[in-house]
Amino acid sequence: MARLDFWYEFASTYSYLSAMRIGAIAKHENVRLRWRPFLLGPFFRAQGWKSSPFREQKEKGAYMIRDMERLAAERGLEFTMPENFPQNGLNAARLALISSDEGWAEDFTKAVYLAEYANGKDIAAESVLANCIETVGRDAGDYLARIATQDIKDRLREQTEEAMTLGIFGAPTFIAPDGEMFWGDDRLEQAIGWASRA
Amino acid sequence: MARLDFWYEFASTYSYLSAMRIGAIAKHENVRLRWRPFLLGPFFRAQGWKSSPFREQKEKGAYMIRDMERLAAERGLEFTMPENFPQNGLNAARLALISSDEGWAEDFTKAVYLAEYANGKDIAAESVLANCIETVGRDAGDYLARIATQDIKDRLREQTEEAMTLGIFGAPTFIAPDGEMFWGDDRLEQAIGWASRA
Repeated sequence: MARLDFWYEFASTYSYLSAMRIGAIAKHENVRLRWRPFLLGPFFRAQGWKSSPFREQKEKGAYMIRDMERLAAERGLEFTMPENFPQNGLNAARLALISSDEGWAEDFTKAVYLAEYANGKDIAAESVLANCIETVGRDAGDYLARIATQDIKDRLREQTEEAMTLGIFGAPTFIAPDGEMFWGDDRLEQAIGWASRA
Repeated sequence: MARLDFWYEFASTYSYLSAMRIGAIAKHENVRLRWRPFLLGPFFRAQGWKSSPFREQKEKGAYMIRDMERLAAERGLEFTMPENFPQNGLNAARLALISSDEGWAEDFTKAVYLAEYANGKDIAAESVLANCIETVGRDAGDYLARIATQDIKDRLREQTEEAMTLGIFGAPTFIAPDGEMFWGDDRLEQAIGWASRA
């Protein structure tokens, strides 16, 4: 079966757009997805930036919000820019890593993105994450305890280092098993097509 | 008749993709285009960058080349990354400004982009620009003399300042008469659609 790695970052607005649709498209094209949460912060710091490019370049940041509003409206999605942006998605990414191991990444990832960008919630808040875990029918206390373990912390750091080694510089990024890389929600269909023909 | 401003920069690879197709799409949708060459250098310098983001961020630069190769192949276009990138498009932009006044911007702009990205020529070279002018049936000596005038130099500077005032931060950028802005070749159809409904 064809495969594709979906690399995403919870602070990325365009990753929200991809997360909401990639599961259905991949299923339709018989492509098996691997959901790979990671953090862009280390990459941005390596560039000498203090924050997201959408903060560093104010014109680009203003445009991104308008672009997201238009795209979300076209797709029937809610979009509200959170007051605090970019949000700290560290614990959300640790939980997503576990959910990916256990096969519930799609539902959990969508729940987090909806909390953040449809409802404007702060996904760094434990109560918000607890609610996302419960939305997908899991025990919040159990999983919140697990992300405090060194093993999960190490694994997210390793996954983030792997992203940098692969040359990932933004999110969402799609990588086929042959190494072909596609960046941005605008390339989602092209990436799925590449994977399904591989 | 619906209208749309097409802002482009000769150092921009994605502007090449748009320049090669926007004329036909706009005509089909009854949208009148204004071809608006400008320079991104002043914007990049204002960000504290020494060069194009594709130079400043090497991973992004490497990806852009691969992305361009794939998109060009899909569209039946040649793409060769010039040895010298980004090129100095100052005189090409001054000529494009005149061509826009006189109604031959589409043909001239395409000729310059093809020289640069299909044939890998240096568009800062007077001989290359002369060839582009002659390709569209004009007298090269005449127009090369005109871009040495202060009037044309001032007008390109003013047009570039206008781009910054409008919040343009990259190329290609499409702006509808109501101010709605679309950035990137990926938004070309959306921009034309917006303009035609306005």
